[in-house]
Amino acid sequence: MYRTHHCGELSIEHLKSTVTLSGWVQKNRNKGFIIWTDLRDRYGITQLIFDEKRTPKAVFEKAQSLGREFVIKVKGTVIERESKNPNLATGDIEVLVEELTVLNQAKTPPFTIEDDTDGGEELRMQYRYLDIRRNTVKEKLIFRSRVSMAVRNYLTQDGFIDVETPYLIKSTPEGARDFVVPSRMNEGQFYALPQSPQTFKQLLMVGGMDKYFQIVRCFRDEDLRADRQPEFTQIDCEMTFVEQEDILNQFEGLTQHLLNSIKGIKPKPFPRISYDQAMKTYGNDKPDIRFGMTFNELNNVAQGKGFGVFDSQELVVGIAVPEAAKMSRKEIDALIDWVKRPQIGAKGLVWVKCNVDGSYKSSVDKFFTEKDLSAWASCCSAMPGDLILVLSGETQTTRTQLSALRMELAERLGLRNPEEFSPLWVIDFPLLEWDEEGNRYHAMHHPFTAPKPEQLNLLKTDPGSVKANAYDLVLNGNEIGGGSIRIHDQLLQSQMFDLLGFSKEEAQAQFGFLMDAFQFGAPPHGGIAFGLDRLVAILGGEETIRDFIAFPKNNSGRDIMIDAPAELDASQLKELALQSIATEKE
Amino acid sequence: MYRTHHCGELSIEHLKSTVTLSGWVQKNRNKGFIIWTDLRDRYGITQLIFDEKRTPKAVFEKAQSLGREFVIKVKGTVIERESKNPNLATGDIEVLVEELTVLNQAKTPPFTIEDDTDGGEELRMQYRYLDIRRNTVKEKLIFRSRVSMAVRNYLTQDGFIDVETPYLIKSTPEGARDFVVPSRMNEGQFYALPQSPQTFKQLLMVGGMDKYFQIVRCFRDEDLRADRQPEFTQIDCEMTFVEQEDILNQFEGLTQHLLNSIKGIKPKPFPRISYDQAMKTYGNDKPDIRFGMTFNELNNVAQGKGFGVFDSQELVVGIAVPEAAKMSRKEIDALIDWVKRPQIGAKGLVWVKCNVDGSYKSSVDKFFTEKDLSAWASCCSAMPGDLILVLSGETQTTRTQLSALRMELAERLGLRNPEEFSPLWVIDFPLLEWDEEGNRYHAMHHPFTAPKPEQLNLLKTDPGSVKANAYDLVLNGNEIGGGSIRIHDQLLQSQMFDLLGFSKEEAQAQFGFLMDAFQFGAPPHGGIAFGLDRLVAILGGEETIRDFIAFPKNNSGRDIMIDAPAELDASQLKELALQSIATEKE
Repeated sequence: MYRTHHCGELSIEHLKSTVTLSGWVQKNRNKGFIIWTDLRDRYGITQLIFDEKRTPKAVFEKAQSLGREFVIKVKGTVIERESKNPNLATGDIEVLVEELTVLNQAKTPPFTIEDDTDGGEELRMQYRYLDIRRNTVKEKLIFRSRVSMAVRNYLTQDGFIDVETPYLIKSTPEGARDFVVPSRMNEGQFYALPQSPQTFKQLLMVGGMDKYFQIVRCFRDEDLRADRQPEFTQIDCEMTFVEQEDILNQFEGLTQHLLNSIKGIKPKPFPRISYDQAMKTYGNDKPDIRFGMTFNELNNVAQGKGFGVFDSQELVVGIAVPEAAKMSRKEIDALIDWVKRPQIGAKGLVWVKCNVDGSYKSSVDKFFTEKDLSAWASCCSAMPGDLILVLSGETQTTRTQLSALRMELAERLGLRNPEEFSPLWVIDFPLLEWDEEGNRYHAMHHPFTAPKPEQLNLLKTDPGSVKANAYDLVLNGNEIGGGSIRIHDQLLQSQMFDLLGFSKEEAQAQFGFLMDAFQFGAPPHGGIAFGLDRLVAILGGEETIRDFIAFPKNNSGRDIMIDAPAELDASQLKELALQSIATEKE
Repeated sequence: MYRTHHCGELSIEHLKSTVTLSGWVQKNRNKGFIIWTDLRDRYGITQLIFDEKRTPKAVFEKAQSLGREFVIKVKGTVIERESKNPNLATGDIEVLVEELTVLNQAKTPPFTIEDDTDGGEELRMQYRYLDIRRNTVKEKLIFRSRVSMAVRNYLTQDGFIDVETPYLIKSTPEGARDFVVPSRMNEGQFYALPQSPQTFKQLLMVGGMDKYFQIVRCFRDEDLRADRQPEFTQIDCEMTFVEQEDILNQFEGLTQHLLNSIKGIKPKPFPRISYDQAMKTYGNDKPDIRFGMTFNELNNVAQGKGFGVFDSQELVVGIAVPEAAKMSRKEIDALIDWVKRPQIGAKGLVWVKCNVDGSYKSSVDKFFTEKDLSAWASCCSAMPGDLILVLSGETQTTRTQLSALRMELAERLGLRNPEEFSPLWVIDFPLLEWDEEGNRYHAMHHPFTAPKPEQLNLLKTDPGSVKANAYDLVLNGNEIGGGSIRIHDQLLQSQMFDLLGFSKEEAQAQFGFLMDAFQFGAPPHGGIAFGLDRLVAILGGEETIRDFIAFPKNNSGRDIMIDAPAELDASQLKELALQSIATEKE
């Protein structure tokens, strides 16, 4: 038997008990006549004591050779510590060791197994199994497990059925790029890994499953942006005989349950905002509403006053930064430089200090009177002491730039409190977005999203203006979930494929099974999918998802621990009737 | 709003309530002046009544046109039925319809949506979404969801952490064939889909996760035998600081929990049998112990009596078939024909009737006396009235043949009761099995399985005789789980790779990361994996897994509903720097 207790459970209640513990040597303090060893396992740390006088000689000697991360088993007696450690669950006791077995030795790890490690990202990923020993990573993985289980409990309680959908499916060129899997048994043919179980969950609704969920891996072969993974996990859900309102309520309930059971928070009913309003107010369809600094359009008060920069632009828009009038010229110049960086791309930044004495000082005093500036302040609901920052230009670009500035300011001003959770629904997304380059429409959500029924007639005359029954759940500036009511009518689905530029043949080849299914009594249905990696990270108070994934890949899609992907045996390629043509490229 | 209630919940308590229901038209009975319609959803069936006198005229007329599987919404009043149906949860009531909306029409389905359908396997798979509407398939999927959740609850309760391991990993030619995934971003390189998360779960133990589980999809590109799927689901578990006994107890606990919570059964402690004993007693390492007919070796009593067929053979082995002495000559001949089929391949079958009057009658009366046969009967613990059946030949072949015969007899005699559950552990598996063809050893379980520590010295001298700390959990003649204590010592692992014919370079290239990990303090660990598809099917009282999988593939690995796998766009292949060489083969 390796243990009677784990390393996090012994307390004063166990005094004089004989116990067996197993774990890793966290550290040793060797005083010559006495050695203290911190023994670590998943559950905690227990202090061991080897005492020249009280520990058998052979054991005491063996204890001299214990290095960090050695795996040992000890048998001993629980005794009271002389100097207790109130920061440790087991801090009142130590174990006086009588027997010691070295279960495995350990080379010195390439970085310290401490909360604050000296290991860089690359090294930590290469030795991820050592990284996971660190409390901070281990706790994140345990946290993820708790969140998953809370999701399952809630949905199961509400009658959702966990149905596993296939991973070896069919490639659909629409949308992001698929990972594909050559089929040996069907030469020249390929499976694809699912980007989501979208069509399968819809078929389950056609099949009458009524309420479905799955926590499921999804795959996208995209050029990886920072903090994206080629494989990611989705909480995938679908319901039948529902309207948008039913889905919002159901999944607001889920999110409330998570915030409550995981974080002990009971948030108010989630605010709802239309996509158009979100863009107008935050320049962004996933606004962080933990703080204000909402957008205020200044065209009416700032144009036509002879300031050419503004007069020629589509949009003049400003935000009031609370209590920032006290910023120095240098600080403001730094902000101006920040917005001019190529990543943001603004040409300049107009500022107005709303002084505490009621006066105004701005970078455009030449063009605007105090009265003008006072009108801006009023537009921006700026208080004395606030700083107004104004950008102008083409509407969408300017909004994006000001949104970036708003987030940056929030960061600098410490307004993005990771322990504050501000969810909101963004609704009424456009059905389509116009792709300038491809000279065609794309589905904003996906091709199965239902237009607002009252706008069906616009599909033929002005498709770009049609709104969808589509919604995102946003938490602290991140989209954590998104979904829609789906089309369940075969003709409408066919019309959508037309709009998206599918030929009849393409639509039939790729989604024929779905359109077939719609002929046999498809019910109204809709759903949502949450990005589990992101959700868990945000609930865990972090910005990046990587440490909430046990074995993440790097930005080139590589697992550097196992060194994958890798070349195949020639025989494997041959069996698949494939040939690499990499060398034939110039 | 589509519904106030679902179709399985209205009862006499709801009389006079106004309700809204949505669902599918199961069937109509049109009496001219009255129409009864069965409305179906996931939860049940509610009878609707359209009455010429009481239903608005327009509604009554519309009801005439309702076909099977139409999706409708109705509003009406709950009334008491004149003739109640005690077989239906809602059989006391019906809904007198006042409003009717056709939500979607339906073509006539290609097979009837009934428990006993007229649809063949192929058709049912092509229209799987319709098949799932059938109660019998739907209930199997719901049952699977219940089993999964019971597994999760039990393991979570016991401190297991659900950790998601990657799906895009590295190909390891050892074992079954991998499905591979070309990497676009790493040209000429491939990921592989996991056959199991084996190495990752071991690394999690090295990482100190202590207790891990995951319900995870696994992939094997094998030529499909009946009832095998290229993708399958595993309950994958691993524990640290455990001996075999700890694992057997933990997962006996899980299985007891499932039998108890899902089937209401409290089985006794599971019997344990060694692999050798299982082969000797049942000719099989996954014996069905719901019934007897255990093997009895008759060499001592049946050889040396001048019956050449027996005398020259390695093994003479018999079973006593209870109360089968009454079989006619014709029935026995049919059994003889059965064992001579090429699938079984026996040369003949010797039989002995143990007559109720104490006399014996056999097919070898020329060679054996009554006394001889009485000794056989004694060996086989045959009772008067039993039939002894005897095969002889090379040991392993003969055991396999007799095992097949034993199962066939059990089937014919109705001894395989699907509602009886007889689990047992098979332990002490050989570490290695000799591959005649390849002239090398294979790992019987996998290359990470630990030999019995007391037999380590035999690894060099007689590796074939070494037993492993490996175990299978068998239920009703099916292996539902299997696992082992793993090697945690780098040198021993390296020795195993040697034995299995890996060169140092191959071992390093494929499993270097694991051997590296073993240098940094790997703890003793072990685990088990259950085949969820099979487990669920057996618990559901069925022999085949297919209907417990929402969207299964056929025996060519095809999903005939979505028609996958399929050819790729040329541009996709090009992006992957791949070329199909199918046409270049002769």
